Amino acid sequence: MIEIKRWLKIGELKILSKNSHRSLVGQAFINPKTNMSEEYTFLQGHKDSMIIFPITTEKKLIILRQFRHAADDILIELPGGNIKPNESPKNAATRELLEETGYRAGEIIIFENSKQWFDPSALRSIYIPCIALNCKKISEPQQDPTESLEIRTVSINEWLTMIQGGFVADSKSLATTLLSLQHLNKSY
Amino acid sequence: MIEIKRWLKIGELKILSKNSHRSLVGQAFINPKTNMSEEYTFLQGHKDSMIIFPITTEKKLIILRQFRHAADDILIELPGGNIKPNESPKNAATRELLEETGYRAGEIIIFENSKQWFDPSALRSIYIPCIALNCKKISEPQQDPTESLEIRTVSINEWLTMIQGGFVADSKSLATTLLSLQHLNKSY
Repeated sequence: MIEIKRWLKIGELKILSKNSHRSLVGQAFINPKTNMSEEYTFLQGHKDSMIIFPITTEKKLIILRQFRHAADDILIELPGGNIKPNESPKNAATRELLEETGYRAGEIIIFENSKQWFDPSALRSIYIPCIALNCKKISEPQQDPTESLEIRTVSINEWLTMIQGGFVADSKSLATTLLSLQHLNKSY
Repeated sequence: MIEIKRWLKIGELKILSKNSHRSLVGQAFINPKTNMSEEYTFLQGHKDSMIIFPITTEKKLIILRQFRHAADDILIELPGGNIKPNESPKNAATRELLEETGYRAGEIIIFENSKQWFDPSALRSIYIPCIALNCKKISEPQQDPTESLEIRTVSINEWLTMIQGGFVADSKSLATTLLSLQHLNKSY
């Protein structure tokens, strides 16, 4: 049995490049197997985000289509967005859902213990998955003037068929779906 | 109904910072809503990777514990790794599984249509999920001398309980689990 040890950090985090959303940073660690120092580079996000599995009072799931710049493609995703400074995860999810889709959540259940790394080797950013129940449309989306989102509602079965058919290429949407299905007690 | 348009790239991709694994890059796009140019920054991975849901001949799932530098923590994950130049996804999955765990896959089924973005807003890197069936232990792991991985086998139900309990904080492992359960026809 191999005992897995944490790597100790040595020295300060170095900021190699920075913009308003994220920084490229370098950090040296001691490899506990060799006792040598190794430098790692990763992207550091400046805010955590919420990813939401929103179900309407008609038991439909609210999903989005939007252009994503790193992917250079239009992707189908669950709604979500950044947590603002001093905002609670629940308030952030409520606000983002309303802004992006025009739906107000009746209840939000945060999967507190299930914070997820987008990519724990390259990206120092986490998201908090949650489920929003009894969502009702109360307004038009208040999207950023520079944003373009298409809102759709589908049944959970249609969503799972879209995933199985390869139409959802966004990892966080799949992971949040699995946790939400578990919460809804859909067998797994 | 909003029509979602692709954003057109203008000018070349700028490399802001680079190491052997990834580059921080900048790209200008035309916002189709405003016709103005906007600059986006993201991390570009240099290789795609495979993420594997490996099931042994005894119907156990092979999982790993390892230290992850961006997370600065020890995480529980599915096996996986980078596709080498000129290597097929199937060969990459077979090689990575054998190197990381010492198990040889009897059969590998690639979810070809289900390539996933780790984070389509920040990280230009995709992974290809797959399932490995009838895996047999044929050797000790051939881990990189600087790597430290702990291999465990658990039942699929134990794995799902670990996910539900918040013990798996790696988004790609959850997404690959959902696709694998769908493939195995475990109800969804």
